[in-house]
Amino acid sequence: MAETPPTRQRAQRSDARRNIEAILDTSTACLQRNPDAGMGEIAAEAGLGRVTLYGHFKTRAELVDAVLTRTVTEADQTLEGLDLTGDPVLALAALTSKSWIVVNRFRGVMSAAQRELPADRIRDSHDRIMARVQALIEHGRQTGAFRSDLPTEWLVATAINLMHAAADEVTSGRLDESEAGLYLVATILSAYTPSGRIVPTLKS
Amino acid sequence: MAETPPTRQRAQRSDARRNIEAILDTSTACLQRNPDAGMGEIAAEAGLGRVTLYGHFKTRAELVDAVLTRTVTEADQTLEGLDLTGDPVLALAALTSKSWIVVNRFRGVMSAAQRELPADRIRDSHDRIMARVQALIEHGRQTGAFRSDLPTEWLVATAINLMHAAADEVTSGRLDESEAGLYLVATILSAYTPSGRIVPTLKS
Repeated sequence: MAETPPTRQRAQRSDARRNIEAILDTSTACLQRNPDAGMGEIAAEAGLGRVTLYGHFKTRAELVDAVLTRTVTEADQTLEGLDLTGDPVLALAALTSKSWIVVNRFRGVMSAAQRELPADRIRDSHDRIMARVQALIEHGRQTGAFRSDLPTEWLVATAINLMHAAADEVTSGRLDESEAGLYLVATILSAYTPSGRIVPTLKS
Repeated sequence: MAETPPTRQRAQRSDARRNIEAILDTSTACLQRNPDAGMGEIAAEAGLGRVTLYGHFKTRAELVDAVLTRTVTEADQTLEGLDLTGDPVLALAALTSKSWIVVNRFRGVMSAAQRELPADRIRDSHDRIMARVQALIEHGRQTGAFRSDLPTEWLVATAINLMHAAADEVTSGRLDESEAGLYLVATILSAYTPSGRIVPTLKS
């Protein structure tokens, strides 16, 4: 018996979705290995023709954007389980360590995005993650653990940029990836400490 | 009386040098206004044909590299007069403020470089400036003013990246350029404060 058109349409849409997921998986892996990987290389790796790949993503920028969006969404889900309502210093240490693990895992995708997409687009893709950092900073200000003399937005930018700086340092071999998490916690924590207050010491 | 060939050669070299300086002046101005300015736009602004411009710089990357090199050399000269041998906290504040003025003035060139050149090339162009920051950090460690629990190289990367972060924030309108210098001083100073020590308060 022939399928009814609506069922067939659903099946086609579901196939298309699976194809796109497979392309994004392969693209993520390619960009991780080589942030400059081109559309030809990605198509070959995915076992597709270039024309088929361009059928799904009109430009390399569109593809990199889709990979970035998926990566950042997954990163945000990883951070969802963290309880950030307790001691702000410990919460900042936990959020920083866990974020670093994700940033480090997706270093290649991030470099590809930095080269291909406008800075504002990259920033917008991080908005949910930035909202977590922002909420934690505001909590820490209320308890007096974090400084109130600089705008929250600047403190958020500080944390995000130091994460990316650490990723660049690891990529270029100047920083050991196993140590970067601790350095980031120490650096961001002291950067958030109010003037006139003691920089907290964390047991490692 | 005809010029002797060596004199003529010298005159030609001197003309070529002046032409290149004029191209670099125009390119700097163009990239400042629009970091994505193309070779056609730069040639037109310089009153040259594209072929002539390509005769001097084979690719856009080569031109951006030359603009970056000249900009960073000038920046380094601006920092030359600073005495960094006194109180490390005051010296860091002075070096940061003065560096910010230069970074802010050349925001467009920096964005153009970040999009066109490999990260390592940009880093290498900063090596003299990084050497100043490094010497100051080492001086501050000896007096106990700055932390010794993180590698000097990471502390240098922190300062340089926060400068560029501030430039991005100003460019996108989220940070007022007149306040960025103070924020940078406060942030870098606290980031360098050892655990267990009080973050210094600066009179503004």
